[in-house]
Amino acid sequence: MTIREDYFKRESLFGLVKQLYPICRSITGDGVRNTLAIVKELIPLQIHEVPTGTEVFDWKIPKEWNIKEAWIKNSNGEKVVNFADSNLHVLSYSRPIDKKISLEELKQNLFTLPEQPEVIPHKTSYFKENWGFCISQNQLLNLQEDTYHVYIDSSLRKGSLTYGELYLEGNSEREILISTHICHPSLCNDNLSGISVAAHLAEILTGKPRLNYSYRFLFIPATIGSISWLALNRSKLENIEHGLVLSCLGDPGKTMTFKKSRDEDAEINKIVEKVLIDSGILYEIRDFAPNGYDERQYCSPGLNLPVGLLMRTPYGEFPEYHTSADNLDFIRAESLSGSLTILEDIIYIVENNGNYLNQNPYCEPNLTSRGLYETIGGRTQSNDVQIAVQWVLNFSDGKHSLLDISRRSGLKFKMIKKAADMLIEKGLLQPAH
Amino acid sequence: MTIREDYFKRESLFGLVKQLYPICRSITGDGVRNTLAIVKELIPLQIHEVPTGTEVFDWKIPKEWNIKEAWIKNSNGEKVVNFADSNLHVLSYSRPIDKKISLEELKQNLFTLPEQPEVIPHKTSYFKENWGFCISQNQLLNLQEDTYHVYIDSSLRKGSLTYGELYLEGNSEREILISTHICHPSLCNDNLSGISVAAHLAEILTGKPRLNYSYRFLFIPATIGSISWLALNRSKLENIEHGLVLSCLGDPGKTMTFKKSRDEDAEINKIVEKVLIDSGILYEIRDFAPNGYDERQYCSPGLNLPVGLLMRTPYGEFPEYHTSADNLDFIRAESLSGSLTILEDIIYIVENNGNYLNQNPYCEPNLTSRGLYETIGGRTQSNDVQIAVQWVLNFSDGKHSLLDISRRSGLKFKMIKKAADMLIEKGLLQPAH
Amino acid sequence: MTIREDYFKRESLFGLVKQLYPICRSITGDGVRNTLAIVKELIPLQIHEVPTGTEVFDWKIPKEWNIKEAWIKNSNGEKVVNFADSNLHVLSYSRPIDKKISLEELKQNLFTLPEQPEVIPHKTSYFKENWGFCISQNQLLNLQEDTYHVYIDSSLRKGSLTYGELYLEGNSEREILISTHICHPSLCNDNLSGISVAAHLAEILTGKPRLNYSYRFLFIPATIGSISWLALNRSKLENIEHGLVLSCLGDPGKTMTFKKSRDEDAEINKIVEKVLIDSGILYEIRDFAPNGYDERQYCSPGLNLPVGLLMRTPYGEFPEYHTSADNLDFIRAESLSGSLTILEDIIYIVENNGNYLNQNPYCEPNLTSRGLYETIGGRTQSNDVQIAVQWVLNFSDGKHSLLDISRRSGLKFKMIKKAADMLIEKGLLQPAH
Repeated sequence: MTIREDYFKRESLFGLVKQLYPICRSITGDGVRNTLAIVKELIPLQIHEVPTGTEVFDWKIPKEWNIKEAWIKNSNGEKVVNFADSNLHVLSYSRPIDKKISLEELKQNLFTLPEQPEVIPHKTSYFKENWGFCISQNQLLNLQEDTYHVYIDSSLRKGSLTYGELYLEGNSEREILISTHICHPSLCNDNLSGISVAAHLAEILTGKPRLNYSYRFLFIPATIGSISWLALNRSKLENIEHGLVLSCLGDPGKTMTFKKSRDEDAEINKIVEKVLIDSGILYEIRDFAPNGYDERQYCSPGLNLPVGLLMRTPYGEFPEYHTSADNLDFIRAESLSGSLTILEDIIYIVENNGNYLNQNPYCEPNLTSRGLYETIGGRTQSNDVQIAVQWVLNFSDGKHSLLDISRRSGLKFKMIKKAADMLIEKGLLQPAH
Repeated sequence: MTIREDYFKRESLFGLVKQLYPICRSITGDGVRNTLAIVKELIPLQIHEVPTGTEVFDWKIPKEWNIKEAWIKNSNGEKVVNFADSNLHVLSYSRPIDKKISLEELKQNLFTLPEQPEVIPHKTSYFKENWGFCISQNQLLNLQEDTYHVYIDSSLRKGSLTYGELYLEGNSEREILISTHICHPSLCNDNLSGISVAAHLAEILTGKPRLNYSYRFLFIPATIGSISWLALNRSKLENIEHGLVLSCLGDPGKTMTFKKSRDEDAEINKIVEKVLIDSGILYEIRDFAPNGYDERQYCSPGLNLPVGLLMRTPYGEFPEYHTSADNLDFIRAESLSGSLTILEDIIYIVENNGNYLNQNPYCEPNLTSRGLYETIGGRTQSNDVQIAVQWVLNFSDGKHSLLDISRRSGLKFKMIKKAADMLIEKGLLQPAH
Repeated sequence: MTIREDYFKRESLFGLVKQLYPICRSITGDGVRNTLAIVKELIPLQIHEVPTGTEVFDWKIPKEWNIKEAWIKNSNGEKVVNFADSNLHVLSYSRPIDKKISLEELKQNLFTLPEQPEVIPHKTSYFKENWGFCISQNQLLNLQEDTYHVYIDSSLRKGSLTYGELYLEGNSEREILISTHICHPSLCNDNLSGISVAAHLAEILTGKPRLNYSYRFLFIPATIGSISWLALNRSKLENIEHGLVLSCLGDPGKTMTFKKSRDEDAEINKIVEKVLIDSGILYEIRDFAPNGYDERQYCSPGLNLPVGLLMRTPYGEFPEYHTSADNLDFIRAESLSGSLTILEDIIYIVENNGNYLNQNPYCEPNLTSRGLYETIGGRTQSNDVQIAVQWVLNFSDGKHSLLDISRRSGLKFKMIKKAADMLIEKGLLQPAH
């Protein structure tokens, strides 16, 4: 990639986040629709609507929530809290209200984060009807004894849950699932970063000639969205070869974090680990745990899909998490771009891994005569490609994939793949069946 | 437990040691009988007598040994060593003797511990007839050239080997074996501590309503006692689900030590390790080795029972071991009580572990609607019970017991059990069969 | 071994290296024949000749190379480089040449090692016809603009590849393969050390009464030699129980290095590791990698023989490697001797390992009555033999070999073997079948 291409990639990644930032999203409603419409300008997304009341496993699609306006006025008619200033100010899924109440009563429905007095927390009440405002602790301390007019012009009506899907058909029905949640309001790292990186990865793959695997991108509301897709697409699940949930990919953290799939032996765990090793960046691999994002659903015991979670700094481990500080100043174009590169490298292994058979398994073949080995021997240090050639030959016994060989040798996957290509060209290696 | 209950528990544990301390025990004889009679005041022990000459595997029950009096007089008629001062003074199983001999001759049958010149060592000669006195190195150095009168009024006659047994019938024939040796004379940590803790554990279990497992407590002479019980109760061995040998449970050491069963996969190894982790105290887990206490017999290759050894400071690793310094000043009521608590926690896991099946294995069930999850989402950190609920649901797939789940999650077993109980109540979990 | 015997062993090991040092060896030719003739004075080696053109797997035996004389003269007729001074001066397998050329032309065929300006590098061109001289960087810098006369009186003609073999028949057809390469010119550590140690090990085994296993020693040119033997002896490969490649056994490095067989579970890996642990010296165990010496061929995927590589300092990790500094001053008699001792200890385990069955598997047998345990019990610390006896009894269940027991217990193999012998004598142990 040229510097110019890299610049445009970074600008485009950050630009999409900027465009989506002002929208008030929740698990249903027009915020989600508007978000997907913008993503659709980049990739040919298919939009699905699942009607309120639809049963999806143990759940029911809730009423659709929309909101126009919300504020708290003091007795002077001044708006002391205004949804127009920040869409975090309203408890997500608040029912409508229009009422005058005392400060004491009001406080029952105010949410703050006392340990970070300057930020507005993000709060939701999806599955129990409630109303509320989220404000900074400083705002709370400034509220005087007074009669307040609380007003939320929201609606909770029969409607639908909206999600976006993009399926790229490859040479095989076996597919790679990339899933990212779209239900958070103006929060950048969690998870406009995931949306932007997923959309750009999809755009890159769309532009490629025929791929070996099929790819499915899901842009869904967290929890209820993945549950809906899983419940309504059970016949497709057996095709899933690998999967990734994407989240928190734009923060300035230097460390990439991968949370493994519940199935510890799943190949996606090995692929991502190898990409992170090869990348030379800092990384951390964590065991699966059943709390987190949508990997909880994909990895539920009855499904047990091979799906991991890729992040930079994990959710809940940066102080900006789920607050108004997770804004455009917090994320970095380079972080988005670096995360996308890791994903491209993951796809590279997915597409290029394979099991091969050494066609001359009895002793080494004569590499010098085939131009695969230095002709002057002795003190010369073998170079990396020569060593890679030896590794590929020795372990292409039908039991080791190129990924296995790259992991065992400690050589980069791309070097092993290059050696395999050279050997295939010389007839020394053939695909194992 | 209230402070008052804890006080009585500690007093009772230490009190039993104090009561048993003066008795001269060996592998047979009235010392063992008197010991078991005192234990029987606490728990309904059954007393067994195995006659001299009975064949038990490769061994024969030896003659019964009893002793009334023993001393060494100098030529002035002064008792320079007297069994009445310490029952360690006589080599255990000494044959009777009544003879005048020179200092030189006497020294052939005197045993000391030169590196700890103030203590009397504990010595035995069970399987080769001999006589002797054990004295401190300082006493030895004070002995002048003289003619000494050595007198041991002991008997070695046909009789029997005595042991105590308590069987508590539970809902299942599957049983837990608790074994402790009773053959040591006035030595507190090794093993009056084991006797007292085992007796009090038995008392606690006797007081409980019906247990899921049956429990068998053995109070036996070391080696020959466990060999006898095993040889005479072979049909019962297949019922043994878990077993523990108890020893050295009263010393002031801060670290609990568990020596694993020979069968490395035995569940008792995992249970004890988890209890020690959950307890928050210092602990050390050691691999099985075929030297030690009666676990050598339970874990002999032809039996290979799942039996481990629980101790505070391991035998041989405290300087007081097998000397007159292993006395009432050496052990602590708090240590005895702390050891008993660990055992109660082990029994808690034994009784409460189980395999369950998530009744909604496809994605998470809706926990909020069932009151199992906070209704306000967002920035809130999930609390431990909520996380435990997620762990239990995700891994109750028939392959993981609650113990497995508690180990994998790092959450305390009791927290996992609490979560399981909540899920059972809501119909989300059922026992796996 | 007495000091005197040890002295002669060291002298003999070093002496053989000294005798072989001046010979100019390559992968074929009289240098190899002369080398084997000298080794044959020590052990009854069988000499094989494989004709030029013979097909061995993917390879063909090359023309035989011999050399009489080689030099570079300046225009004054002075020999500025002379093969008579060091046989490293000629690129191994150089074709004959007799030509006057400019310095510029000459430099195309000169090889130096700029980072070590005083040494002559060792270089080869076996599989592509070429000519050349190897000189020190300092020599190169001294060469003036001039017309040089390059002269190599070598021959490349139909002939054969020569190797030596010694087969020692033991009680079983199962055999141990010891392989060492003989193709290097005047280089001591790599690999006159290997030749000398292998020859002396063969001499020791020849002098022993009937062995349990058969032993095969191969003295072969690297790569093409092992490939030839493997191709021409395929029916013998299934008899190979363990194998070792020997190289770099004379350098002053304090650490022994073992590179494991490709088959990670191969017993030779465990045997060598245990010998190195028991020896008390520094050691390093490395995983198999498909670059190195002839283990590359033995461990090729179609053969996958259980063959490891034993070295002191690994090839390429000492600066003298493949240069004129790998000379008689570099290696040490004590290093050769220490390496031989490790090999004798490896053979000791090979010959003495076995699976036994405890004849009294139910509880411990009565060891005191059989004189296998101290009669005075109590404070006495059990000695190592007693502990070894307990380990052997407990784990001789048919599933653990003496090697397994020694590894698990941490006791030395020889101690475990001693305990096993005592138990066999007492009828408590019998070979498992």
